[in-house]
Amino acid sequence: MTICVVLLSGGLDSATTLAIANDQGFECYALSFFYGQRHSIELEAARKIASSASVKEHRVINIDLSEFGGSALTDHEIKVPEGPTMGIPVTYVPARNTVFLSLGLAWAEVLGACDLFIGVNAVDYSGYPDCREEFIREFEKLANLATRAGVEGSRFTVHTPLIELPKADIIRKGLQLGLDYRNTVSCYQPNDVGAACGRCDSCRIRKEGFQSAGAVDPTPYY
Amino acid sequence: MTICVVLLSGGLDSATTLAIANDQGFECYALSFFYGQRHSIELEAARKIASSASVKEHRVINIDLSEFGGSALTDHEIKVPEGPTMGIPVTYVPARNTVFLSLGLAWAEVLGACDLFIGVNAVDYSGYPDCREEFIREFEKLANLATRAGVEGSRFTVHTPLIELPKADIIRKGLQLGLDYRNTVSCYQPNDVGAACGRCDSCRIRKEGFQSAGAVDPTPYY
Repeated sequence: MTICVVLLSGGLDSATTLAIANDQGFECYALSFFYGQRHSIELEAARKIASSASVKEHRVINIDLSEFGGSALTDHEIKVPEGPTMGIPVTYVPARNTVFLSLGLAWAEVLGACDLFIGVNAVDYSGYPDCREEFIREFEKLANLATRAGVEGSRFTVHTPLIELPKADIIRKGLQLGLDYRNTVSCYQPNDVGAACGRCDSCRIRKEGFQSAGAVDPTPYY
Repeated sequence: MTICVVLLSGGLDSATTLAIANDQGFECYALSFFYGQRHSIELEAARKIASSASVKEHRVINIDLSEFGGSALTDHEIKVPEGPTMGIPVTYVPARNTVFLSLGLAWAEVLGACDLFIGVNAVDYSGYPDCREEFIREFEKLANLATRAGVEGSRFTVHTPLIELPKADIIRKGLQLGLDYRNTVSCYQPNDVGAACGRCDSCRIRKEGFQSAGAVDPTPYY
């Protein structure tokens, strides 16, 4: 079996990405980050998802991006918006996907894996610069220059199976693969028992996605 | 004054790079990492260097690359070689510079800086894939796709003032700029009081550098 590293946040997209990697026959190593996000509920979700997907190994790395701040997700002084926003949203975390992919690359290199999966999506989150196809392709080029494997002739591939899918199609795909979305968390500001606000960008996109897919959203909203 | 982020390890190269950035008129923010390296003496060195260079701010970020292992610098099971080696040395830390530059980019973006300095050197460490000019230029491209600043028209520059300099020239440059190399640590396996082994790759290159520069190496060797 070919091994791969899957970045797993605990959200709907990365859970679906993991299900797809599994379905494609990869042996999956899941990597999550405690990066100073507002809540750790998504990490508990990541643990449940990794466990029910029977990944080979699941690691959670501490990397405190809240040291730098600059985002509503890592700085409690910046409010999460509860309506549509223009331009790059304040929930964008500076260089987050660059940092996460770099750490995924580090682990992949040690494991001898040449495949990385990330659930970025350019349709619903077009405001995030590091969710775009061109960013991912550039990272792939960098990966091959950055590493021993690259120098010795291996070729890294960054798989982005969701990048052009609307949320409804992502959900349909996951349901086809038997994914239980109950374990996933999308909300930027869940309450203490893990219920979602239903109003932030991420909740609204999720709810609309389930509606368009004609499926029931198992999320409890407060 | 234009601000910049300087990656500062506590070694000779990054200390010289910081002195150069200062000399070029940048206001410097220094960034160091506790990444699970074998010893923390280089972080103490980084603090002294940052302080005597009067940086605007110095941050130390925890990011435990020893979780992944795969290098003599982060895995105590792998011995540091004490003689010349062929190919990419076992002291290479998988994807380290990609991870460090990504975190430098994250801080730069929050600070509003478009300039990053890194003391990579392709002459003496030609075995490390992520010390090569082509890697750095690729990271620069990635930085402009990865970030809000890039999307909005800013252009990141990754400065590598040492990349083509032999060690003796680096030392001459630092001495010209008044740098006290006593504060820098090169050894991969210093003892408890900070004395250097004199035998690892990094020590040998340092000693030869001072010799060629006709200068006194202030390092205590054990």
